[in-house]
Amino acid sequence: MKELFLIGIGSGNPEHLTLQAVRAMNGVDAILIPRKGAGKADLADLRRAICADVVTNTLVRLVEFDLPERDEATPDYLQRVEDWHNAIAQTWEAALLGAGSPGRVALLVWGDPSLYDSTLRIAARLAPAPRVTVIAGITSLQALTAAHRIPVNGLGAAFTVTTGRNLRDAGWPVGVNRIAVMLDGDCSFAQIAPEGVTIYWAAYAGMAQEVAMSGDLAIMAPQIIAKRAELRAAHGWIMDIYILDRV
Amino acid sequence: MKELFLIGIGSGNPEHLTLQAVRAMNGVDAILIPRKGAGKADLADLRRAICADVVTNTLVRLVEFDLPERDEATPDYLQRVEDWHNAIAQTWEAALLGAGSPGRVALLVWGDPSLYDSTLRIAARLAPAPRVTVIAGITSLQALTAAHRIPVNGLGAAFTVTTGRNLRDAGWPVGVNRIAVMLDGDCSFAQIAPEGVTIYWAAYAGMAQEVAMSGDLAIMAPQIIAKRAELRAAHGWIMDIYILDRV
Repeated sequence: MKELFLIGIGSGNPEHLTLQAVRAMNGVDAILIPRKGAGKADLADLRRAICADVVTNTLVRLVEFDLPERDEATPDYLQRVEDWHNAIAQTWEAALLGAGSPGRVALLVWGDPSLYDSTLRIAARLAPAPRVTVIAGITSLQALTAAHRIPVNGLGAAFTVTTGRNLRDAGWPVGVNRIAVMLDGDCSFAQIAPEGVTIYWAAYAGMAQEVAMSGDLAIMAPQIIAKRAELRAAHGWIMDIYILDRV
Repeated sequence: MKELFLIGIGSGNPEHLTLQAVRAMNGVDAILIPRKGAGKADLADLRRAICADVVTNTLVRLVEFDLPERDEATPDYLQRVEDWHNAIAQTWEAALLGAGSPGRVALLVWGDPSLYDSTLRIAARLAPAPRVTVIAGITSLQALTAAHRIPVNGLGAAFTVTTGRNLRDAGWPVGVNRIAVMLDGDCSFAQIAPEGVTIYWAAYAGMAQEVAMSGDLAIMAPQIIAKRAELRAAHGWIMDIYILDRV
């Protein structure tokens, strides 16, 4: 592999693709497609649908591979992630070897390769190192703010982007009144003091099945928890994100 | 005005436009084009060039208007911004009245309407209120991380997005090791303790004239200040952004 393009494809709306992403997808020899990821079968299908829609260059090959799973037997979290990233890099290399070692390869990254995504860290493990180009994509955070028609920041104010785990472990970040929470499988918003807090929540932000809810956290928390469980049961998986705004 | 589309157009690369943005631009009656903004003549030209490139529907009219200036005589900052936003909303209404009051109108927003942008707040002043649709766009922060091929967050860690003014007034935000700084006309990175801090900086992030520099803050701060002055003189304006990463 001489060149690797990490292409942000947006957060589930095929029309989130940028013109730059479409051009890059048509300029490579191969596009690597993970066959599953975190049980999200819909997302693998969406990647294939996106390629079918916009890849008009018939010389571009789609190379599918099975994403390895994390070894939950490894007790240390960071070591577990480290091992997993190594395994994924090896899987990329094996899949490309089996496909005749194309020189210019693209990976389609959910959202943007810069935001809570491991692809850059995995790519850093490749040897010899390919030339890496990053193409930005619309994130689920942007799909969330678009759905609610709100800014992510207060006027001239700072905001913090964090994870559900951090919010549970460290509480509300010091010095900011607005936070965006990603990667939260545990409805951590229900564990903070709700007084004066407004929540802007969305499941499947940017996708056709998007559901957006907002309001006073004390009132909305139980409603969102119930809606989240209902959606998860209906679709078989869930992806959600939210902003908390404190007066 | 019945419907208003706030369309993120990315941070200066015409190929940052999403397929959704292109479709929306071709589906309106009129696109409002500010004739100047903060002295950035290149940006007004870029908006026109983007329209010329992607608007294929000949029924779409471009309606230009002169962006009012902030009244620097108003001493209170928030009042000055408030007055300015009111003036801009009135200017939109006057320009559209002069163009035969089109029903579906688009505004092209630099970056994404959600991130340090006033358009949503200005739109909230329109009466009667139109139906507002937000279309996300690639931000300069994403162009910065793409240029440096870095994630904006540490592995599983929180980060804070802030402004130069906040960084100067409040210092390094508590509880995070990585911050992204926007709207900084004053090289505020030079006013913090540089020990153990890496800076990832770019001017004109995402544009053809993009310049990216990174390294140890103590070493890079004077180099970036010099390069910034040089670029500003050469182009007549500058727009820059950076990430600071503390070990």
